[in-house]
Order: sequence, then C-alpha cells, then structure tokens
Amino acid sequence: MSSNKKAAPVGVFDSGVGGLTVTREIMRQLPDENMVYFGDTARVPYGSKSKDNIIRYSRQIIRFLQTKNVKAIVIACNTASALALDVVKEETDIPIMGVIVPGAAAAVRATRNKKIGVIGTEATIRSQMYSKVMKEMLPGVEVIGKPCPLFVPIVEEGFAKHKIAEEVIDYYLASMKETDIDTMILGCTHYPLLRSRIMKYLGDGIQLVNPAYETAMELKKLLRKMDLLNEGQSSAEESGQVCANGSYEFYVSDTADKFKQFANSILPYDIRTTQRINIEEY
Amino acid sequence: MSSNKKAAPVGVFDSGVGGLTVTREIMRQLPDENMVYFGDTARVPYGSKSKDNIIRYSRQIIRFLQTKNVKAIVIACNTASALALDVVKEETDIPIMGVIVPGAAAAVRATRNKKIGVIGTEATIRSQMYSKVMKEMLPGVEVIGKPCPLFVPIVEEGFAKHKIAEEVIDYYLASMKETDIDTMILGCTHYPLLRSRIMKYLGDGIQLVNPAYETAMELKKLLRKMDLLNEGQSSAEESGQVCANGSYEFYVSDTADKFKQFANSILPYDIRTTQRINIEEY
Repeated sequence: MSSNKKAAPVGVFDSGVGGLTVTREIMRQLPDENMVYFGDTARVPYGSKSKDNIIRYSRQIIRFLQTKNVKAIVIACNTASALALDVVKEETDIPIMGVIVPGAAAAVRATRNKKIGVIGTEATIRSQMYSKVMKEMLPGVEVIGKPCPLFVPIVEEGFAKHKIAEEVIDYYLASMKETDIDTMILGCTHYPLLRSRIMKYLGDGIQLVNPAYETAMELKKLLRKMDLLNEGQSSAEESGQVCANGSYEFYVSDTADKFKQFANSILPYDIRTTQRINIEEY
Repeated sequence: MSSNKKAAPVGVFDSGVGGLTVTREIMRQLPDENMVYFGDTARVPYGSKSKDNIIRYSRQIIRFLQTKNVKAIVIACNTASALALDVVKEETDIPIMGVIVPGAAAAVRATRNKKIGVIGTEATIRSQMYSKVMKEMLPGVEVIGKPCPLFVPIVEEGFAKHKIAEEVIDYYLASMKETDIDTMILGCTHYPLLRSRIMKYLGDGIQLVNPAYETAMELKKLLRKMDLLNEGQSSAEESGQVCANGSYEFYVSDTADKFKQFANSILPYDIRTTQRINIEEY
C-alpha cells in the first residue's frame, strides 16, 4: 500500500457533537491518523428519527466524506450504526465501521453472568441492534435495553456536572439498578460524558462499556489488517497522553458556535476553524 | 368573499409538536376554522439552528401549505417567527402571521413598570426580536431575555410534572426572579406546558404572557378584517369548552408516533391519522 493511501484521512461522522468522544479516542489511540469529521448539526438529533431518514442522511454524509478522499469511515453515532450501517456498508467501496459491533464485543467479553444492560436513544434501543449482535456473539445472553432520551440534551446543555444530571440518571436507571446485570453499554456517544456519575450511581457491581474506546481499538486493527495504518513516531498510547499529531478537519451542516465550544471542552486541543457545508446537496 | 374561500383551512406550522399549543388555542377561539398543521419532526429543533436554514425550512413549509389551499398561515414557532417571518411575509401572497407580535403586544399592555422578561430558545433570545418589537410599541421598555434550552426536551420527554422540571426552572429562572420585571413572555410554544410550575416559581408579582393565546386572538381579528372568518354555530368560546368543530389535517416530516402521542395529550380530541411528507421536495 502506498504511503499516500496511508496518509489519507479517516472519515468520522455523527449527528452532531457526540461523535467527538470517538474522535477523542481515535486521537488517543491512533495519534498519527488524519481525520475529517462531519457533525450533522442541521439535522441533529438522530435518536428520534426514522430509519429511512437516517439511511438517507448517512448516504449523503458518506458521499461528502468521499469527496475528501477518506480511506475508511467510522460511523461515530449509535443510532446511525444501528439503523444504517448494514445498508451503507454494501454500497460503499472503502472500509466502513460503526460503534455497535465493537461495543457489543467488549460487553460479551466483560460479562460473567451473561446479563448485559444497554442504554441509548429511543431509535437505538428500539432497533434492538445491540441485542441482536450480542446474541450472535454469545448465545444465551440476556440483554436489557433502556432508552434515556434526556441524557443528550443534559450533556449538550452543560448539565453533566449539575445535580439535575443526578436526578435524571436516577429517573432512567433506577430500574436498571434493580436487575442483576453485571455489564452495561453506554450506547450513545454522549453518554461517556456522564460516565463517572453513572458509575457512581450503579456501583462497583456493574462494569460500564464505552463503545467509543472499543471502536478506536477496532479501527486500529482494521487499518493494520488492510495495510492502511498511518504509524508515526508517537508513543501517545503508552504514555496515556493524547498527542493528536494528525491533521484534523471539522465540517458541520449548520452553525458551528456550539459545536466548537463543545469540541473544545472535550478534545485535547482547541478547534480553530470548522467549515459549514450544505449536506442536502450531496 | 365567497364562502368557499372562508371554508379554506388555516395553515399552521412549527418545528415539531410545540405549535400544537397554538393549534389548541385556535380550536378554542375559532372552533369552526379548518386547519392544516405541519410539524417539521425531521428537522426539529429549530432553536439551535441558523437563520438561513430557518428561512429555507419556512419557505419549503409555506410552499407545502399552499398546495393545501390555505387562506392564511400562522407560524406557530417563536424561532421561525423571530428569524423568518419578515422575509417570508414579503414573498407570500396570503396573510401570514407569527407569534411574536401578538405576544409582544400583550406584554406591553400588561406591564405597569415597563420591565418585561422573555424566555425562549437560544435562537429566539439571540435574535432579540421580542425586544425590538416591544421597544417600537412601548419606548423606554426594558427587556430581559433568557434562553432556557432544556425546557423543550423536558416537556417533550414528559417531565413537565416531574420534580426535575422544578430544578430546571430554578436553574434558568433564579436570576429572572431577582429582577423587578412585572411581566414575562413564554417565548417558546412548548413553555405554556410548564406554565403553572413557572407561575408558582415566580410568584404572583410576575404576570405570564402566553403568545399562543394572543396569536389565536389576533388571527381572529385578521380573518374578520379580511372577511375570511369561518363562523359557525359554535358557542365554544363562551362556554370555555373546546368544541373543535373544524376539520383538521396533520402532516409531519418524519415519524408520527411521538407526535401523535404528544398531540393527543394536549388537544381536545385524539388525532387518528397523520401524514408524512418529504418536506425537502418543496
């Protein structure tokens, strides 16, 4: 594989800012990869929308990312991974992966009693995609899903550290706490930003799985297998620091103010420019 | 004016379900009017989006409503009223009104000390449209705006009666309570559904203005003035009951499940059918 191809960026997309948690993990684990991120801020949220619209949106975004000559695409959105990945994978001639299979694989590795919880948007939970994937990986596994629609606005409006977040966590997860699951998947890219509070609420008996982390690991494997991995001199992963040596471009479909503010609160460096495109044209 | 023209429906639109509070008031105050409602559930929420997108969305919806031969249009969305009404009014050959002017007029009538609060989405407050309109109506008026972005998901996810709503109200309105405003506008169509709790929180000293109510009153005046009012035999307004004798059609741009559920919780009768259209084609 030519080094030119290796230097091509990885395309990452999400309905908005949530996928930046995946971007952060990719920066951490693959610090030399270049990235093109697209956040669909004009059509966010995806979690309450229909399958055919999510497929249409995903197709448009993949067409856009391909104009940037990406070598692979990560759907950094649980809802789009659940509803659109199977369809768009067939249509796309570069590697494309979602967050659900990596998250599901980590959960079935982690569970001891074969009882796993999944939290996510309404669309993700309704799709039962985590459940389907895990039942193929680990026959006999019991999966308990719970939609937590208020978690996304809680995070986006900056309430993650406010006591309101605690009450919303209690509201949604009290029933989950009463089950005997030993593992729970944070099945929405915003949820890792509530991770420490959810962990505190559920206690030590339940291990949390963050699909963002698992997805970055899987991406590394996939790129290596396809001889597409861009390896530099970094030792970021070993040191635990995020070096983020790659070159990164950020695109959005509507105003970028809030996007930038949010990105700068979770990425290891400040985004200076984002470009707005009309995604309906793709 | 021919009775045919009078019998034509009024078009009402909103980013989603919020405008149903305006629909409810129109049903109450103009029970014989027929209505075509469009809820842009594919592109909700508008409150965090840019002016040019809101104008584009509004133009598409107006084109759609005109295919239904509406005699007048009500923009039952504060954000679209603030950002798009001035532009689309010039382009449209039937009467078109928003919720801001009626809400502003009621607030300047109500205030005694010329100090008025406005709460709404980020886009509505940032536009300062309520402030501009009220300053023209009542020179010297002081307007204090406050965006309350979490109120919409709180209402849409069914938390209006939960204690979480109380805490969110306290979070956003504590600073408003400390001012000496005597009037406050509920500048987002979802907010009337939090009205009693906001009223309880702010106390008797602050009068709340519900633009939905004022808009229905203004619509009646406008239709009467233009000899377009469809008057039947109803005495609904007098009896205080909602008779809703008209014929009503509901259209959405994405899934209707949540829309119907929400509509049925606030309208005087259950919606049986909604039709989904592809608004991007208009």
